[in-house]
Amino acid sequence: MRKIGLLVSYDGSAYNGYQSQPGGNTVQDKLEYAIRVLTGEAVHVSGSGRTDAGVHALGQVVHFRTESRIPVERWPLALNARLPDDIVIRAAQEVPPDFHARISAIRKTYRYVINSGRFPDVLERHYVFHHPTPLDFAAMREALPHLVGEHDFTSFTSPASTQLHHVRTIYDAALTVEPVPGGTIEEGRGRATLTVTGSGFLYNMVRIIVGTVLQIGEGKRSPAEMAAILAAKDRSKAGPTAMPHALTLMNVEYGPEWGIDWEAASRIR
Amino acid sequence: MRKIGLLVSYDGSAYNGYQSQPGGNTVQDKLEYAIRVLTGEAVHVSGSGRTDAGVHALGQVVHFRTESRIPVERWPLALNARLPDDIVIRAAQEVPPDFHARISAIRKTYRYVINSGRFPDVLERHYVFHHPTPLDFAAMREALPHLVGEHDFTSFTSPASTQLHHVRTIYDAALTVEPVPGGTIEEGRGRATLTVTGSGFLYNMVRIIVGTVLQIGEGKRSPAEMAAILAAKDRSKAGPTAMPHALTLMNVEYGPEWGIDWEAASRIR
Repeated sequence: MRKIGLLVSYDGSAYNGYQSQPGGNTVQDKLEYAIRVLTGEAVHVSGSGRTDAGVHALGQVVHFRTESRIPVERWPLALNARLPDDIVIRAAQEVPPDFHARISAIRKTYRYVINSGRFPDVLERHYVFHHPTPLDFAAMREALPHLVGEHDFTSFTSPASTQLHHVRTIYDAALTVEPVPGGTIEEGRGRATLTVTGSGFLYNMVRIIVGTVLQIGEGKRSPAEMAAILAAKDRSKAGPTAMPHALTLMNVEYGPEWGIDWEAASRIR
Repeated sequence: MRKIGLLVSYDGSAYNGYQSQPGGNTVQDKLEYAIRVLTGEAVHVSGSGRTDAGVHALGQVVHFRTESRIPVERWPLALNARLPDDIVIRAAQEVPPDFHARISAIRKTYRYVINSGRFPDVLERHYVFHHPTPLDFAAMREALPHLVGEHDFTSFTSPASTQLHHVRTIYDAALTVEPVPGGTIEEGRGRATLTVTGSGFLYNMVRIIVGTVLQIGEGKRSPAEMAAILAAKDRSKAGPTAMPHALTLMNVEYGPEWGIDWEAASRIR
């Protein structure tokens, strides 16, 4: 019995999130189906975490156990041929028997993209949130350091969260802004990318952070309020949950003891 | 009677090209429908040129005549509200009575994007051509200067072309390459953008140029063959017609006498 890790990318638009659920039509279902067609085995595919319905991934990590002797470098092409074209395996490698995609993960990075140009970029409309009025990017940036560090993120998760503990560590939160037509960045017009790296994320956590940072960008709240919102440990104090379609799981990191090296794995032919 | 020019962007995936045709479902049809709903007028919307079925635009230019007194700065929002979300008007301005989107155009720029990474980028799959084996980017770049200048492009158009004259001028043709996962640019793995600016383009011309440059990148032809292909004035000497979905009309330019300034137009509220 081997354990295989996969680096998985997907367009979440058509799915009810990563994780299997009674309603079906999840990324996990599609992965398990492709593996069954390829190997005949009914495997359970464990992800590094759920992604919400409509959320995308470029660097989701999953693992599963298999009796199959297919060489590990052949798995990506073999599975991609059996997956819909909105799910693409980018690399595969054999992992130690006690590796677990979720439990072994030490850092995750998410990206959220907001376009505050007057009109949406039509070729990015499925992956970027269009905010048609200007945003105060400096104020949004000023709010971010409050999030960094170890905090109880109860204010930034759904009351439906099933997690017992809401303490997580944010290692980095950064906002970069590129120009768009029809206005300058100083005027609040731009394509802004919020990148957040943390030890882990609660249900809806990144989307509620974005919804709150957007209110700060709109001048409805001050950047300093972020500290009070965190301290309140009360979901009702934070902003709304931002739309899922502009959120992408970029990267999941593991300690060196696991020997995860997707770049090396993706080079083996 | 006023004449209005529009800067139009669209995702061409769902359309039979820009220009109206018996089969219907074109971008022109959708624009004419939206204007009819807004003004009650049955107008003819003239584009700067056709784009093939499946080809996108970020900077298509069109014009039409109207009796409507709606202030010009209100047209983009008013039309966008009446257009499907894969067509977005980015700016509107009043143009001189003798301006014509096609006849007055002096330069057009197209972009074609190729990913030669081992696997496609799932979030770009509708807009990027995935070429799963490596490409010799240096050879592709070496071929491009042969295209620049005034040439008869008969070899680079469909035999079905209805144009009488096949002489066009290419002002610039450039290839830029960004890194992708799983291999270096030196190894032929990258996200390559071919940008071509010319006086005008024949039916399928950019796509046949791309199909030929791809054969050079694959080592099936030498860069120097480009000159002989041009000189032959024979479609069968060039490469295949590349897929449409990775091609985007970026920009249409007009002489200063027309006073076209989309950036200024898009700033008027």
